[in-house]
Amino acid sequence: MPFSAITTLPEIDFVMEQSMQAFLAYKKINFKERAAFLERIAFEIEALGEVLIQTTQAETNLPEARLLGERGRTTMQLRMFAAMLLEGSWVEASVDHAIPERVPAKPDLRKMMVPMGPVVVFGASNFPYAYSTAGGDTASALAAGNTVVVKAHPAHLQTSQLIASAIAKAITFCNMPAHTFQHVTGNTFETGKALVQQANTAAVGFTGSFSGGRALYDYAAVRPKPIPVFSEMGSTNPVLLLPDALELNAETIATQYAGSITLGVGQFCTNPGLLIGIKSASLERFKSSLANAINQVPASKMLHQGILNAYHKNRTIALSTNGVSRLTNEIAANDIDATPIIANVSGADFLANENLKEEVFGPYALLIECTDIAEVKKVWNSVSGQLTTSLMGTDKDFDANPELIEIASSIAGRVLLNGVPTGVDVCASMVHGGPYPATTDSRFTAVGINAVKRWVRPVCYQNCPDHLLPDALKESNPLQIKRMVDGNPYQ
Amino acid sequence: MPFSAITTLPEIDFVMEQSMQAFLAYKKINFKERAAFLERIAFEIEALGEVLIQTTQAETNLPEARLLGERGRTTMQLRMFAAMLLEGSWVEASVDHAIPERVPAKPDLRKMMVPMGPVVVFGASNFPYAYSTAGGDTASALAAGNTVVVKAHPAHLQTSQLIASAIAKAITFCNMPAHTFQHVTGNTFETGKALVQQANTAAVGFTGSFSGGRALYDYAAVRPKPIPVFSEMGSTNPVLLLPDALELNAETIATQYAGSITLGVGQFCTNPGLLIGIKSASLERFKSSLANAINQVPASKMLHQGILNAYHKNRTIALSTNGVSRLTNEIAANDIDATPIIANVSGADFLANENLKEEVFGPYALLIECTDIAEVKKVWNSVSGQLTTSLMGTDKDFDANPELIEIASSIAGRVLLNGVPTGVDVCASMVHGGPYPATTDSRFTAVGINAVKRWVRPVCYQNCPDHLLPDALKESNPLQIKRMVDGNPYQ
Repeated sequence: MPFSAITTLPEIDFVMEQSMQAFLAYKKINFKERAAFLERIAFEIEALGEVLIQTTQAETNLPEARLLGERGRTTMQLRMFAAMLLEGSWVEASVDHAIPERVPAKPDLRKMMVPMGPVVVFGASNFPYAYSTAGGDTASALAAGNTVVVKAHPAHLQTSQLIASAIAKAITFCNMPAHTFQHVTGNTFETGKALVQQANTAAVGFTGSFSGGRALYDYAAVRPKPIPVFSEMGSTNPVLLLPDALELNAETIATQYAGSITLGVGQFCTNPGLLIGIKSASLERFKSSLANAINQVPASKMLHQGILNAYHKNRTIALSTNGVSRLTNEIAANDIDATPIIANVSGADFLANENLKEEVFGPYALLIECTDIAEVKKVWNSVSGQLTTSLMGTDKDFDANPELIEIASSIAGRVLLNGVPTGVDVCASMVHGGPYPATTDSRFTAVGINAVKRWVRPVCYQNCPDHLLPDALKESNPLQIKRMVDGNPYQ
Repeated sequence: MPFSAITTLPEIDFVMEQSMQAFLAYKKINFKERAAFLERIAFEIEALGEVLIQTTQAETNLPEARLLGERGRTTMQLRMFAAMLLEGSWVEASVDHAIPERVPAKPDLRKMMVPMGPVVVFGASNFPYAYSTAGGDTASALAAGNTVVVKAHPAHLQTSQLIASAIAKAITFCNMPAHTFQHVTGNTFETGKALVQQANTAAVGFTGSFSGGRALYDYAAVRPKPIPVFSEMGSTNPVLLLPDALELNAETIATQYAGSITLGVGQFCTNPGLLIGIKSASLERFKSSLANAINQVPASKMLHQGILNAYHKNRTIALSTNGVSRLTNEIAANDIDATPIIANVSGADFLANENLKEEVFGPYALLIECTDIAEVKKVWNSVSGQLTTSLMGTDKDFDANPELIEIASSIAGRVLLNGVPTGVDVCASMVHGGPYPATTDSRFTAVGINAVKRWVRPVCYQNCPDHLLPDALKESNPLQIKRMVDGNPYQ
C-alpha cells in the first residue's frame, strides 16, 4: 500500500490493523531478543551520524551540542530498557504455590506483567529525539512487548523519518515482525483522534501542550472501549524562595535561576515559570540580580514560528494582566526571536487572575511577591498539579516551616531542594509525571524504567502445568529473575 | 451537622471536604500506626458478633456459612494490608545516590509511593463484606494513607451501617482523624455522580454492574480535573471444553461446572456464563450430565427482588434469541425464586447475536457448540475483556493447540486450567481485573496486595537533606525495607 504524504484516515485503520497483527507475533519474542532489538535501534540511530544532527538543527534551531547530548540520552534510554529486560524484575513475577490441604484448597497461582497491544505515541516538539520517535514512550512500549505507531511531530518531520528509518533497519536486522514499529504523519487533530479511537489501539503516550493532551484523553474516554492515555502536558514548576536562603544567597540563586529560565530558550516542560517569595530587602536583591542576569541573555531562536508566536502572545497576555509589571528591559518592537522576560506580581493579584497560572512556554518567569509565608502557601497550593516544585531554603527555613516538604509532595511528581528543575536525570528514582494538569494520570512516570508500567497489565495463571507457563513463571525460574514467592518478596 | 437518611448533594460536598481535611492529617501517620488501625477494624468487625451475620442474612438471603466465610475473608484482607504496611516493599522505595563528578553532575534522587487523597468506594451487592464497606477497596485505600468515603449499597444498608460503626470505633480507639472514614447513603445515580465529580475526590473504586461502572467512569472523565476510576463490572468468564478432556472426563467436568454455575445462586462476577465446546459425542455426554446435575439444583432466593427481576428478564431475552434452546427442565410459570438454567446455541448463532455476549447474572450458563477449534477461537476472541477464562484440557489438547494459553492471557486477567473460576484466592499472585469491559483499567487488580497500586502515585525527592526525607527514603533505612539502590533491586 503506497502511503500518502499525510496519512489518511483509511490508512490509519490499515496501519493499526497491521500493528495488531505484528503485536500477536512480537509479544511472543523473548526478553533477550527484545533487548537486542532495542540495542540495535540505539546502534542504528548512532549510525545515522552527522546527517541526523544537521537535519534536526535545520528543523528545530537547536544547537549541535544540545542535540548531541539529547541523542546520547535517547540511545542510553534504549539501552537502559534493554538492561531492564535482562534484569527482569519489571515483570513483577509472583508465585504462590498450591496448598491442597487448606480448606478450601489453595490453587497454584502465578502472576506476571504482559504487554497490552499497539501503543500510539505522539512525540514532543521540544525533544526531537528523547521524547519523540524513538524516545522514552517508544522505548518503554517496545521493551514491554507492545508494538508502536508514532505520529511524527510536524515540526521535525525529516528528523522523525530518519529515526523511523533507523528503527526499520533494526527491525530487519533483528528479524522482528515488519510492523512492530510504524510511522505516520498528520497535522490536524483529526489524525490524532483517528489514531486514539481506532479499535486496535491499546494505549496512548503524548508529550506536549495541555490542549493537545487533554483532547487525546477525551477522545479515548468516549471510546466504546476506553483505553489509558498518558499525556504529559507541561507545567509551571513553582519555586519557593524561602527567606533565610534569600538572605544568605539572593545573588547566587538569581544567577542559578537566570540560567535555568533561559536554558534552551526556556523550551523545557520543567522550565521554572513561577518564583514565589516574600516581600523583603533580600527579595529586592534577588529581583535586581535576576533582572540583571536575564537582561544579559540575548534573544534566541525558538523551535519554530508557531512556538515563537505563542510565546509572544502568552507573554503579552500575562504582562497586560492587572497588577503585573516587567522586571527586565523593554522588549524591542521588532522581537523576531525570543527575548527572555521576568514579570512580577503581588500574591493577591496572582490569586485574583486565573490566567497567570497558565504556562508561558519560553524564556519567561513570573515572580510572585507575597506578604508572608501563609500567602506563599496559598499561592503554591493554588497551582498544584505540577511536574516539579522546587524549594530554595536553609535548615532554618525548613525548621520554621516543617510542613513544606509534605505540601510539596502533594503538588508535584518531583520535589527539588536547592536546585533547578531543568535537567531530568534518567534513573529508577526519577518521576517525570505529577497530578493533573501536569499529566492525565499521576500514578505513572514518563522517564526512567518505571515508564514501562504505563503499557503493561498483570495476568494470573491458575493451576497451569509448568511446561505451559511463560518462562518468567516456571518453577525452575529459567530467567533467573527475582520473584515474590508465597508472599515473600525478592526470592 | 445532622445527616439526612439519604445524603443530600450539599452534604456530599461537606463530607468530601471533611475527607480532604482528614487526609491531610491521616497521610502523615506512620505505617505501624496505620497497620494497627487496620488490625483494629478487623477486631471491631469480629466484635460485632452474631448481630452482623443475622442482619446480613435478613438483608441478602445469603446463608450463614457463606457469610461467616466472607467475614473471615474480609478481616483477613484487613490484616494482609496491615502486614503489607510493615513489610514495606509496596512503597517501591528507590534511592539513586548523587554522582557529583559526573558531567552533568547527578543529583541525589529518591522515590516512593504516596497516597492520592480521598477515595470514594461503591461496594457490591453480592459481597456485603469483602467488596463493600470494609472490603478490599476500603482496606487498600486506607493502607496507602488515603481517606475513604463509602456509599452504602442500598441492598444491605443496615449491614453497611454496622460495619461503618465498627470502623468508627477503630478510629476512636486508634486516635485516627475523625473523618478518615465516612459513610454516605443514596439510591440514585445523582449521588454517585456528585461523589465522583466533587472536587476533593481523588480516585474511585466500584464493584457492580456494567451500566453503573461505566457511568462513574464517564462522570470522572469529564471532570475539569479527571481522576482514576477502577470499576470492576463483571464478566461472562468463558470456559473452553477441549476435545480430549471431554472425551476422558465429560461427566466429571459437568458435575464440577454444575456446582460452579449454581454456587451462591450464580451471584459471583466469576460465575462461568459461557461454555464453549466442539460438537461431538463427548459434548453430548457433557450436555446430558450437566443438564441432569442442574435439574437437581432447587430454585433459590437471590440477593434481592431487583436482582431476581433482572435474572428473569435477562434469561428470557437470551432464551428467546434466534437459535437458542434450553437444555434443562422447563421453568415453572410461577418462578418466584431463581431456577438454574443451561441454554445452548451454535457457534454461528452466538456470533450472529451480540446480546448473547452479555452477562446473565444468576445461575445460568450458555453452552456454545462450535463446528471446530477455529470456530471455538472465533467465539472466544469475540468475548475478550474478561475477569477470567478457563481451559479444560489435557496435555494432548494443549499439544494440538499450543497457542491457547497465549490467547487466554489476552482475553482475561486470570487464566485457569482445569478448574472453575468461582473462588478468588486472596494472595499476591491473584489478579481480579482484566481488559474492558471486565474493568475500566486492565493495569490493576481489585484483590491481593497489589490492589493498593490503584491509590498511590510516585514522588521523587531531589537533593533533599536526609532529616527532611520520609522514613522510607532515609539513608539509614530506619524502616528496614527493601529498596532499589543505584539501580540494583532489593537492597
